[in-house]
Amino acid sequence: MTISTLPRILIEPIIRNALLEDLGLAGDITTNSVVDENQHSKVAMISRENGILSGAEIAALSFILIDPTIKIKFLKNDGDSLSPGDKIAIIEGSSHAILTGERTALNFMSHLSGIASVTHKIVKAIAGTKAHVVCTRKTTPGLRLMEKYAVRCGGGMNHRFALYDAVLIKDNHIAIVGGVRKALEKAKRKVGHMVKIEIEIDTLEQLKEVLSIGVDAVLLDNMTTAMLKEAVAMIDHQAITEASGRITLDTARTVAESGVDLISVGWITHSAPILDIGLDFLA
Amino acid sequence: MTISTLPRILIEPIIRNALLEDLGLAGDITTNSVVDENQHSKVAMISRENGILSGAEIAALSFILIDPTIKIKFLKNDGDSLSPGDKIAIIEGSSHAILTGERTALNFMSHLSGIASVTHKIVKAIAGTKAHVVCTRKTTPGLRLMEKYAVRCGGGMNHRFALYDAVLIKDNHIAIVGGVRKALEKAKRKVGHMVKIEIEIDTLEQLKEVLSIGVDAVLLDNMTTAMLKEAVAMIDHQAITEASGRITLDTARTVAESGVDLISVGWITHSAPILDIGLDFLA
Amino acid sequence: MTISTLPRILIEPIIRNALLEDLGLAGDITTNSVVDENQHSKVAMISRENGILSGAEIAALSFILIDPTIKIKFLKNDGDSLSPGDKIAIIEGSSHAILTGERTALNFMSHLSGIASVTHKIVKAIAGTKAHVVCTRKTTPGLRLMEKYAVRCGGGMNHRFALYDAVLIKDNHIAIVGGVRKALEKAKRKVGHMVKIEIEIDTLEQLKEVLSIGVDAVLLDNMTTAMLKEAVAMIDHQAITEASGRITLDTARTVAESGVDLISVGWITHSAPILDIGLDFLA
Amino acid sequence: MTISTLPRILIEPIIRNALLEDLGLAGDITTNSVVDENQHSKVAMISRENGILSGAEIAALSFILIDPTIKIKFLKNDGDSLSPGDKIAIIEGSSHAILTGERTALNFMSHLSGIASVTHKIVKAIAGTKAHVVCTRKTTPGLRLMEKYAVRCGGGMNHRFALYDAVLIKDNHIAIVGGVRKALEKAKRKVGHMVKIEIEIDTLEQLKEVLSIGVDAVLLDNMTTAMLKEAVAMIDHQAITEASGRITLDTARTVAESGVDLISVGWITHSAPILDIGLDFLA
Amino acid sequence: MTISTLPRILIEPIIRNALLEDLGLAGDITTNSVVDENQHSKVAMISRENGILSGAEIAALSFILIDPTIKIKFLKNDGDSLSPGDKIAIIEGSSHAILTGERTALNFMSHLSGIASVTHKIVKAIAGTKAHVVCTRKTTPGLRLMEKYAVRCGGGMNHRFALYDAVLIKDNHIAIVGGVRKALEKAKRKVGHMVKIEIEIDTLEQLKEVLSIGVDAVLLDNMTTAMLKEAVAMIDHQAITEASGRITLDTARTVAESGVDLISVGWITHSAPILDIGLDFLA
Amino acid sequence: MTISTLPRILIEPIIRNALLEDLGLAGDITTNSVVDENQHSKVAMISRENGILSGAEIAALSFILIDPTIKIKFLKNDGDSLSPGDKIAIIEGSSHAILTGERTALNFMSHLSGIASVTHKIVKAIAGTKAHVVCTRKTTPGLRLMEKYAVRCGGGMNHRFALYDAVLIKDNHIAIVGGVRKALEKAKRKVGHMVKIEIEIDTLEQLKEVLSIGVDAVLLDNMTTAMLKEAVAMIDHQAITEASGRITLDTARTVAESGVDLISVGWITHSAPILDIGLDFLA
Repeated sequence: MTISTLPRILIEPIIRNALLEDLGLAGDITTNSVVDENQHSKVAMISRENGILSGAEIAALSFILIDPTIKIKFLKNDGDSLSPGDKIAIIEGSSHAILTGERTALNFMSHLSGIASVTHKIVKAIAGTKAHVVCTRKTTPGLRLMEKYAVRCGGGMNHRFALYDAVLIKDNHIAIVGGVRKALEKAKRKVGHMVKIEIEIDTLEQLKEVLSIGVDAVLLDNMTTAMLKEAVAMIDHQAITEASGRITLDTARTVAESGVDLISVGWITHSAPILDIGLDFLA
Repeated sequence: MTISTLPRILIEPIIRNALLEDLGLAGDITTNSVVDENQHSKVAMISRENGILSGAEIAALSFILIDPTIKIKFLKNDGDSLSPGDKIAIIEGSSHAILTGERTALNFMSHLSGIASVTHKIVKAIAGTKAHVVCTRKTTPGLRLMEKYAVRCGGGMNHRFALYDAVLIKDNHIAIVGGVRKALEKAKRKVGHMVKIEIEIDTLEQLKEVLSIGVDAVLLDNMTTAMLKEAVAMIDHQAITEASGRITLDTARTVAESGVDLISVGWITHSAPILDIGLDFLA
Repeated sequence: MTISTLPRILIEPIIRNALLEDLGLAGDITTNSVVDENQHSKVAMISRENGILSGAEIAALSFILIDPTIKIKFLKNDGDSLSPGDKIAIIEGSSHAILTGERTALNFMSHLSGIASVTHKIVKAIAGTKAHVVCTRKTTPGLRLMEKYAVRCGGGMNHRFALYDAVLIKDNHIAIVGGVRKALEKAKRKVGHMVKIEIEIDTLEQLKEVLSIGVDAVLLDNMTTAMLKEAVAMIDHQAITEASGRITLDTARTVAESGVDLISVGWITHSAPILDIGLDFLA
Repeated sequence: MTISTLPRILIEPIIRNALLEDLGLAGDITTNSVVDENQHSKVAMISRENGILSGAEIAALSFILIDPTIKIKFLKNDGDSLSPGDKIAIIEGSSHAILTGERTALNFMSHLSGIASVTHKIVKAIAGTKAHVVCTRKTTPGLRLMEKYAVRCGGGMNHRFALYDAVLIKDNHIAIVGGVRKALEKAKRKVGHMVKIEIEIDTLEQLKEVLSIGVDAVLLDNMTTAMLKEAVAMIDHQAITEASGRITLDTARTVAESGVDLISVGWITHSAPILDIGLDFLA
Repeated sequence: MTISTLPRILIEPIIRNALLEDLGLAGDITTNSVVDENQHSKVAMISRENGILSGAEIAALSFILIDPTIKIKFLKNDGDSLSPGDKIAIIEGSSHAILTGERTALNFMSHLSGIASVTHKIVKAIAGTKAHVVCTRKTTPGLRLMEKYAVRCGGGMNHRFALYDAVLIKDNHIAIVGGVRKALEKAKRKVGHMVKIEIEIDTLEQLKEVLSIGVDAVLLDNMTTAMLKEAVAMIDHQAITEASGRITLDTARTVAESGVDLISVGWITHSAPILDIGLDFLA
Repeated sequence: MTISTLPRILIEPIIRNALLEDLGLAGDITTNSVVDENQHSKVAMISRENGILSGAEIAALSFILIDPTIKIKFLKNDGDSLSPGDKIAIIEGSSHAILTGERTALNFMSHLSGIASVTHKIVKAIAGTKAHVVCTRKTTPGLRLMEKYAVRCGGGMNHRFALYDAVLIKDNHIAIVGGVRKALEKAKRKVGHMVKIEIEIDTLEQLKEVLSIGVDAVLLDNMTTAMLKEAVAMIDHQAITEASGRITLDTARTVAESGVDLISVGWITHSAPILDIGLDFLA
């Protein structure tokens, strides 16, 4: 899965909104009252921790939307490893713009790098197995596009982005409709030819029924390793296999070694602590 | 500090944006293809963990913006303690609306309850001291208003909301301007009469200089407990005292016992794991 | 493929925008100056042609966003056949709201019904074959969500909705990358597990190469019927087959009889004439 | 009536919206996975049909909003005639931006050129008479400003733009108010001095009454040629004369020769097929 | 010219914006901290001055957008005369909503009533002449639609609303183009048949030239009364006549008695002092 | 209090909205029909009155948002004194852009300069006393950020910006809660440590009670000079003192000489007449 810089047309409205949230009507009253308007500074964005960088362009745009003359030189790129003390970028320009944009830029970059960093840990934990790490729709409201990108920076892959780009029949759908067969058959009959269908199953009986109908992917939810292995064997490449359900850094490798194609983990987006990144004045 | 329900005029645009992020152009293609349009369901929002609830109205609005006829009855209110298995709300109405809104509602509620829950832990850790827990501007872009509210649900207090509502002179301001005296005197001369001024200091020499000029609040950054105590003694109620700098659940009590008025912690907003809340179908 | 009413949260902003386009600052100066503000009317939306209805809820919302007390009773629903003189809906309420909303409501409904009607003609033309009619991304800017819906009202199916929900490797991609193999292999390596891949091919040599790699769907562009049949035979259910390229009402059946799964036609969205629908005053 | 380039401040939001419609959260996943990010291309926009160009700047902006470094050189301008194979523009720059913007750019340009082209056909059909072709408010919701412009590119003129810029008393107004006299007198008494008034009439009796009161323009709806001639004679330059009602390419000249000043045709905006324009890769 | 209530679809976004301007992220921190959330109040909007009411619905919506359960009963309507102490409306409901919406509601109503009141003064000053008072485009950015409405409440009429609904050739246009003839002839040749044309003239020579070409209205700028009379005589009902240029309450009658049709005054919108209106708690 | 240029990210949306209000769909039909599209002009913004300039950057942006190639050279800056005939700026570029942006640019600049000018008059009137002039929340909806800035240009200071940045307990709060003690104690208990509290009092008894509790600022409403002096003496630097209530240019000095810190005047924002500024063509 490719990282690819996010197009500005998609991220600019989100960054603009974040800056307006911080500026309100009165703006940065500290900087406005304390710092001379013509002063220039040179600062560095510096990592205080080990981790993976994500959000370089977003942080840059946080300053540029305040003052397009700000100059930013990146020494690290999204997806790069960071160690404590590593300079990520050198920023030069109006002290006002730098101080006013600092918090917004760091809030984005430390949040996204936090996601990239925990993703990368779990990717490393399962290295050597055939499994990939994928994220879920358990993202922070308003930031999904950026958080999915951060997962890719950390070496993970993206599951469906939203309700609209793939069918995922979950336990609640099955309960309401009355069984996997009915749900799956309705889906296959109704969705377009470019839409993949995945179904969540809890038991091997459900799995057998699903396989008899055919499906693109099977979500094996909250299964023991033994059960996972049996399911993988039953599926035998007839469908993509995805394990989910409270998988941790400690259990990930065992799950991966069951032979599944994918391990999906919600906490890499919904509960990743930030990566500590600071801004130090150089001159 | 009062919790107070957030006015709908402020939160509706944020929720609407989150729903549109998930719906795109094609909408919930799983539910649309699998579930009958006239079907009604009854579901419960249920806590899977111990914690503090935050975001009840926001979750409710996530369903109501999809279908205003949905009925929601809350059994728990924001600020209430939750135990595993506790029913938070009963929701009845169109199965379509419930399934389509589920993820957005849970993303908001579990994120905000996560913040309320960690806030509450640190509040309990320092119970009995005079200190209060306050949050910072290290919030998730676009959600500050909700996250500040979640902190209040957890028993914390809010620091300034943004760049516009108070002056906080930080190390970088001081470095650029050339010393605490110059920075503080400029601020006092220039800001309006309803604006409070706080200044960050690292040394007791800086503190002495600040006290000779006068200020509303002093941010004592990254000090040892001994140094904190000495600072509190020097300040002697001439200013509000705030301790900050990598304060953890383990160290919070010791810091609080130094006699400071406030303990500010960034991680209750930027790194709180979610509180696990699920949606179970009842009928 | 299901028709399903479009959720109001998705269509309301588009309708609101259309109304504001017509109202500007001064509003409906004709009605404001000529008609008494308290007058009530009863009118009927009436078809002047044979066709298929699409856009009933959208037309209704065009009036309701001006005046929520307007009452609308639909006698026909989306997807229903219309004959000249058929009453589609009876509308009662403020004459001001009816006259002011009339043009916007009719512009939406006649445009969408036009799309549904031509879609239905081609669906009928190929009835009895296994082929389905699908639409493309050649839609009117800003209205894709509604136009894709109108295609479903006419009995067609939707291809991918946008650039984000499926991979479609077209001639220009192939030309830039340097061949179908390179393009297809890169796509298979990089996209997520829930994304389907389709590739456009012009020759049977390309097809052979594509089949050796494997793909979800093949777009057979601008082929003769003979060539189409040969391609379908070669593919032999290893991939979904889609024929495209200047297919008309006259040629559709022949193309369908080649055995392809899908016929994609751009003109049902980009060049459908409106279905003539008018609004007659009853009282 | 002048063509005049549309100001960017008016068209940019519409184009931006169209691009976001196509990009969603995940962007152009085909190009992102298949094409190298640093690759540059040179392409041509080429007409596949005879017609009139409209939308050059709009198409250009569709690429530029994705990547401002894209270079576009127009060989044809809005209002120019096109023949099959004519190069309209040469575009050079990032292959990513070109492929991602292609569909949006073509959707705008082919739609608007379609309107310009059918307008031009009817303009030519009545050449030599004194009549002008005018468009109506039967436009595609959200695109009126562009479609009115396309009509001008084709040699037509614009009727009122919206409900706010002129009074047009139609049959429904007259029915509700109770006659042309009452409606016209109210309008004349109430509207501002810079607002023109036109009234729709069906009979020569109505016309006589209208002329006795005075009006700026008369809409002669669905009249035979003989009746049109009689009406024009009765009006005798006391008001502008406009013929409307199912006028086709075949009947336009006869209608125009009745001596009316204007022929209004809804279908040039609501039912124009697109002009087929493609994008060919050159290098 | 009709007053007519402004449609909610046009005014709601402006009021919503005003409320958000006052609420920011933290909301009404005074009311939230001081007043009990369940408390209800009954208050009256009361005039403290003589004047004309404008903005009743706008003020009402300022409360209703905060809390739709607020009840408002108007004792005066837009266009009514007010005396000091007159109760305009009785408002009952949540004390929170009333206190939070108070300033926004009053800011709108006192501003618009201020405009209506000065308009009414000048309307009275010229009563008995044939002249009408009209406003200009010198309005407060963002509020033109409401301010034009306020002028109508005061008995004035509206000139063109904006750049788009009528042609007004002013001194700068004439200077650039090189004379009234050239400017007027270009305009007549190019604009649509529903657009009126007015031209500003400073001398009687210009007037003569203009009359020889023909025009809908003439703006007689900064002329003495004698010159105005001569101009009106020369025009002799061939065009609408409008006097402008620093007309005051004192000079208005003399200007009107020159026989012009219209007196245009910029200051009724750009420099009207507010009408003092307060909100008194009843219970 | 610093003037400081307003950040473009805050003012651009307001200016863009004002331009769209004037342009609608059809744009500047006068300029479009009368002036050649390639013509360039040189014009000057010129003051016609004595006053203080405010809004230079806002006016500049009004032109630049239409045409970014427009060149503007300012001869006067915000806060400078203006005399009749003073050239404020020289503008060169496309005649179309200049004519189309003229009214919006002047509407902003003359409105804001009007506010700066009346503010400056009252500032001069109290020169030599210790008092400062402050503005209120009685601002024009949508323009508060600009109007607060204009007050600073005129030498005034800003009170709180909105409901969110400071507590101001007013008569209605006190009435509802039941007395100053209850209101003040609730506020002190509940608001954050960076929020200042001011309370409005009408009597010296209230003042005594307030002082016994402690507060940051006291609003002395509608008091006689004698009473003001007595209040200032009682307060004796325990709180900031602010006088308000129908203070005019004539009475301001007497009020200021009572010894208060601040004089708050609503009319400098809600009722300031514009400063007359025009645009003259040079070439």
